[in-house]
Amino acid sequence: MGLIVQKFGGSSVADSDKIRNVARIITETYRRGHKVVVVLSAQGDTTDDLIAKANEINPKASKREMDMLLSTGEQISCALCAMAIERLGCPVVSLTGWQAGMKTNSVYGNAAIKRIDAERVLAELDKNAIVIVTGFQGINKYDDITTLGRGGSDTSAVALAAVLKADLCQIYTDVDGVYTADPRLVKDARKLDEITFDEMLELATLGAQVLHNRSVEMAKRYNVKLEVLSSFSGQPGTKVKEVAKGMEKTHVSGVAKDKNVARLALVGLEDEPGIAFKIFSLLAKNNINVDIILQSIGREDSKDISFTVAKDDMESARALLEENREAIHFDRIDVSDNIAKVSIVGAGMVHNPGVAATMFEALFNAGINIHMISTSEIKVSVLVDAADADKAVQVVHSKFYGEINGQ
Amino acid sequence: MGLIVQKFGGSSVADSDKIRNVARIITETYRRGHKVVVVLSAQGDTTDDLIAKANEINPKASKREMDMLLSTGEQISCALCAMAIERLGCPVVSLTGWQAGMKTNSVYGNAAIKRIDAERVLAELDKNAIVIVTGFQGINKYDDITTLGRGGSDTSAVALAAVLKADLCQIYTDVDGVYTADPRLVKDARKLDEITFDEMLELATLGAQVLHNRSVEMAKRYNVKLEVLSSFSGQPGTKVKEVAKGMEKTHVSGVAKDKNVARLALVGLEDEPGIAFKIFSLLAKNNINVDIILQSIGREDSKDISFTVAKDDMESARALLEENREAIHFDRIDVSDNIAKVSIVGAGMVHNPGVAATMFEALFNAGINIHMISTSEIKVSVLVDAADADKAVQVVHSKFYGEINGQ
Repeated sequence: MGLIVQKFGGSSVADSDKIRNVARIITETYRRGHKVVVVLSAQGDTTDDLIAKANEINPKASKREMDMLLSTGEQISCALCAMAIERLGCPVVSLTGWQAGMKTNSVYGNAAIKRIDAERVLAELDKNAIVIVTGFQGINKYDDITTLGRGGSDTSAVALAAVLKADLCQIYTDVDGVYTADPRLVKDARKLDEITFDEMLELATLGAQVLHNRSVEMAKRYNVKLEVLSSFSGQPGTKVKEVAKGMEKTHVSGVAKDKNVARLALVGLEDEPGIAFKIFSLLAKNNINVDIILQSIGREDSKDISFTVAKDDMESARALLEENREAIHFDRIDVSDNIAKVSIVGAGMVHNPGVAATMFEALFNAGINIHMISTSEIKVSVLVDAADADKAVQVVHSKFYGEINGQ
Repeated sequence: MGLIVQKFGGSSVADSDKIRNVARIITETYRRGHKVVVVLSAQGDTTDDLIAKANEINPKASKREMDMLLSTGEQISCALCAMAIERLGCPVVSLTGWQAGMKTNSVYGNAAIKRIDAERVLAELDKNAIVIVTGFQGINKYDDITTLGRGGSDTSAVALAAVLKADLCQIYTDVDGVYTADPRLVKDARKLDEITFDEMLELATLGAQVLHNRSVEMAKRYNVKLEVLSSFSGQPGTKVKEVAKGMEKTHVSGVAKDKNVARLALVGLEDEPGIAFKIFSLLAKNNINVDIILQSIGREDSKDISFTVAKDDMESARALLEENREAIHFDRIDVSDNIAKVSIVGAGMVHNPGVAATMFEALFNAGINIHMISTSEIKVSVLVDAADADKAVQVVHSKFYGEINGQ
């Protein structure tokens, strides 16, 4: 008997049968005596379809109107799910972002939740209703509709769980938990029963795409117990907690791949103090996030700086640097988006220097060239050619988990 | 230079090209120096598609959730139209029913507008923005979304025009005005330049389907100048006013047909006082609207009462009367929905008794049998077999407007 927030993604509500399935999961939870708050994404491809409609009319539509448009997707899935629950005989009410008191800042298309005025949700729970809330959206101080950006429904769910002090926040998706690697890619990938927030955060950031990283950050900050599980299998999923017990013997929790990465290399920089500051403050001021940075000694008095950005930012980063060629002083910029980042994540990694070496060995044995390396307390990332990415995940996973499941 | 409310129906915004066309009409009005408030319906078949989705999941879905679902249709068309206007370079903002302050009562699916808190709309107009408002919807005192029922977008537009004291409310549709008969049916049907509210009201009620009758009632009450015109032709439409000048010589403004009608006949009623009251108060209490009532003397001490209802209400009216057979005392109920109502409407009709006779003559000459007759100050309606309806419209129209355009 507690309060459970359940979030279902777009693939879990893609059609009428799937909505009925979701309604069954929700009502079963409710009938076990729990209070249930549900957060839904838009059905399947709805959001993409709406974006296509908008592009047909105005490829440069304002983000304010875009949010007005896209927010309808979740409203539709929530209303339909409420109807399915009505049919199963449970009291239910669906609420839009503004009805549920989801207050955000005014960054249309990528808004952050500022607070949740949860009176309405609490009042409906007091009336014993199942409460269905639209994910991914809220309103700003002008009463205009905002969206939280892709994957934002996870954040909506965790934020609601934090404010309502929920006992558990279940993220239902089309995979049945967090795996040691992408199961479509690595056939002996294993499901993890538990994982820490930090590990999950690295995996989310690294493109494991199980959970939106903002939602994991928020769960960690407010200590919201998360569970990632499948809406189809009925099996227990992966629990995400502050401290995971029963950690795997190996210190590697997972292997992840991220293809949304582009590398820029500034070649022939003058070796003068403050050059890195100049470059990266310029990029930061223009909202370009930089991930891995590598600085190498060039010939004579020059040096090279390479760094990675999201693919979408590659051209604007290049243009920005070209514009400031005079101020920065460099010979040329090399860019490449034909690369991928492969990473291993594990909580104890920092105390076990052999882990990185083992990864490099696996890649070397497979003849895969490493372009850049970046390490943190709980991860090691390498940049490889895009064509090598899948193989890299397989050989690294196999090195750590191999057929005999040992090192 | 004034304030113009423009309403575009679903067929006017059915696809991207049509939305671009609507955006062109709106921006041209704006560039002539007017303040413009726009009310839009959902695109083409969107509402029907959403209803189909809902029925797939729960044919008995609550009306509250149905309104939550259906209100997305207008939100989509408004956002897309705003994007099209942005592309044409005019300042614009789209608003949902709740953002525009459309406050309704709580009759989900068929709500009535109680008031409009127009601060936001006025503030946007002050900023010189074109304001796009979702038709057909509002919110009730619980902050839940309501819809005004089919055709409610006309009412939204007229209500906004009344509150904003607009100089004109233009109802754009796929026909270029109000005709003396359905132009698809009667080849020499003529467009009227002007018509009175009362005549329009009769025509709307009678199934001319150009304007929602609630909207005409509201326009009459608040003296909102209406114009019905085509979003495709670019031609002047029909103006609807308190007093129309330049009335046609003939007193008949139009001939209309309504197929959404069913007849019930209670045969063999005891001829006792209060019997009509018993029957019709029973129907009223159960929200069944009765249109034409005919009471005839039956044989001996009994009488018959026939009346018409909307087709959807026929079976529930029959069941209701059967349940109360003991209290009412009748021999049997005959029902038929294979009938249609054909009407002529004209302001001066009551002072010109020859008009009704002319209509009956036209029908008699064409061999069309009249089942029931009903007259009011400005209309004459007859009930005929459904199979005769189109021909009835044609011969009546031709009698009044004929090839020589005279009586």
